[in-house]
Amino acid sequence: MELNDDLREIISEFLPRNDENSRCHVTLTYAQSLDAKIAAKKDTRTPISHQETKNMTHFLRSTHSGIVVGVSTFLVDNPSLLNKFSDNHKITPIIIDPLFKTKSKYPTSQLLENVRSGVGLRPLVVVSTDVYNSQKQELDSFCENFPLKVLPLDTDASGRFDWCDVFIKLTKYVDSVMVEGGANVINELLLRPDLVDSLIVTIGAVYLGVDGVSVEPKLVSQLTNVKWWHGDYDTVMMANLKY
Amino acid sequence: MELNDDLREIISEFLPRNDENSRCHVTLTYAQSLDAKIAAKKDTRTPISHQETKNMTHFLRSTHSGIVVGVSTFLVDNPSLLNKFSDNHKITPIIIDPLFKTKSKYPTSQLLENVRSGVGLRPLVVVSTDVYNSQKQELDSFCENFPLKVLPLDTDASGRFDWCDVFIKLTKYVDSVMVEGGANVINELLLRPDLVDSLIVTIGAVYLGVDGVSVEPKLVSQLTNVKWWHGDYDTVMMANLKY
Repeated sequence: MELNDDLREIISEFLPRNDENSRCHVTLTYAQSLDAKIAAKKDTRTPISHQETKNMTHFLRSTHSGIVVGVSTFLVDNPSLLNKFSDNHKITPIIIDPLFKTKSKYPTSQLLENVRSGVGLRPLVVVSTDVYNSQKQELDSFCENFPLKVLPLDTDASGRFDWCDVFIKLTKYVDSVMVEGGANVINELLLRPDLVDSLIVTIGAVYLGVDGVSVEPKLVSQLTNVKWWHGDYDTVMMANLKY
Repeated sequence: MELNDDLREIISEFLPRNDENSRCHVTLTYAQSLDAKIAAKKDTRTPISHQETKNMTHFLRSTHSGIVVGVSTFLVDNPSLLNKFSDNHKITPIIIDPLFKTKSKYPTSQLLENVRSGVGLRPLVVVSTDVYNSQKQELDSFCENFPLKVLPLDTDASGRFDWCDVFIKLTKYVDSVMVEGGANVINELLLRPDLVDSLIVTIGAVYLGVDGVSVEPKLVSQLTNVKWWHGDYDTVMMANLKY
C-alpha cells in the first residue's frame, strides 16, 4: 500500500506530534459525497473513497494510536478498523456507546475476530456510568469472557458524553485518535475547535441525494490553514477548525 | 482578470463547442460549502468563492452566450450577471420566472441599470403561458417601457417548466448557457444528464451549517469524466452527468 508523495508531504503537518499534551491529539476524518452525505441511506454503508484516498486513511491509521467511531458505525458496518498501511503498528478501536449496545454484537464482530486472530487490539468501549453501574456484575463478567475494555463516563441529562471528557479519559490509553464518524459525531465535533486538532475530509465525485446521511453542523464552522490535494478520483481537504 | 493556466487547460474540454445542435449547450455551475450549502440562509447571499474561482466564473461567462438564474436569485441578489473577463463579449441574462415576479423589481434592478449604461444586454424572462396570456396587454406595455424580453412557455400542473422545453426555447436566442442556480434549479438539473452538458462546481472550505440552502438532488446522481483542480482556497470539480 502506497501513499502519493505530494499528499504525504501536505498531510504531514496535520499528523500527531510527540508533544506532551494534557489530552490526546484528535484528528477528525471522513469521506463525503459532493452533496455532503457520508452514506446514501441511514444504516447503510456507501463506498465513496477510491484506492488513492483509502490508502490515505490507512496511512493515517498507521500514525495514530486510537480510532474512534460511534456505536451506529460499529452496528451497521461491523468494521475492521485495522491499519493496512504498515505491518508494525496496531491501532486501538474505540467505540462511543453510552447504552453499551456493543455488547449484543461484539461476540460475532470483526473486531473480536481481529483480536482472536492476533491482528487487532482489544477495543475500548466508552459507556455511560449509569448503564455501567446498573449492570456492573454482568459487564465485568462479559469483559472477562471477551477481550473488550469498558470505560464508564458520566453523561448529561440527554444521555450524551461531553467530548472533552471523552478525550481526556482516552488519553490514559492512547496519545492520538482518529475520529471516523458517523454523522452525529462529525456534526458535533465540527463545532469544537478546542478539541479537534486536524480535520481531513475526502470528497468523492458523486451526489448521494436527499435520502443520504448529511454532514452539516448546527452552526457555521470556519476553517483555517486549508490545504487541498486531489487525485484522479477524489479530493482531500486538510484544515484546522477556526476559533 | 486572469485565469490560472492549469485550470484553463482542464476546463477547456467542458466549454461549449461550435457544433450545430438542436439545443444550446448547457453548463451547470455553482459554488458550495463543504456541507453542500450555496448560502448560509434562505434569501441571503453568502460569498463562498475566492478570487481564483471568481475569475473562473467570469471566464466561463466570457465563453457562453447566456446565463440562466432562477427568479429567487434575481430577487435576493439583484445580480449584475456581467462578464468581467473579456471586454468584447456580452452575455444575455435569462431569468426563469413562471409567475413573472421579475416585473416588480426590474425597474430598479442592476440588470436594467446595466442595459441603460450600455454594459449589459437586454434580459430574457421565461414566464408561464398562462400568466402571459392573462396579463398580455400589461406585459407588452411593460416590455415597451423597459428593455426586457418575455418568453412565454407552458407549465405543468404544478406551475413548473419542463427544462427540455426551456433550453429548446432559449436556443432561438443563445447557443450556450451557464445555469448558475439557485438550489431548486441545481437540484432539478443534477438529475438531467440528457440536458446538462458540463457540470462545474466550486467548493469553498467552510461549513455553512444546518440552516443553509442545500444542494441535494432527490436521487443519487453519478458523474463521469471527473476532473479536479484546486487553488489556494477553493477546489473546482468538472464533470459530465452519467446516464
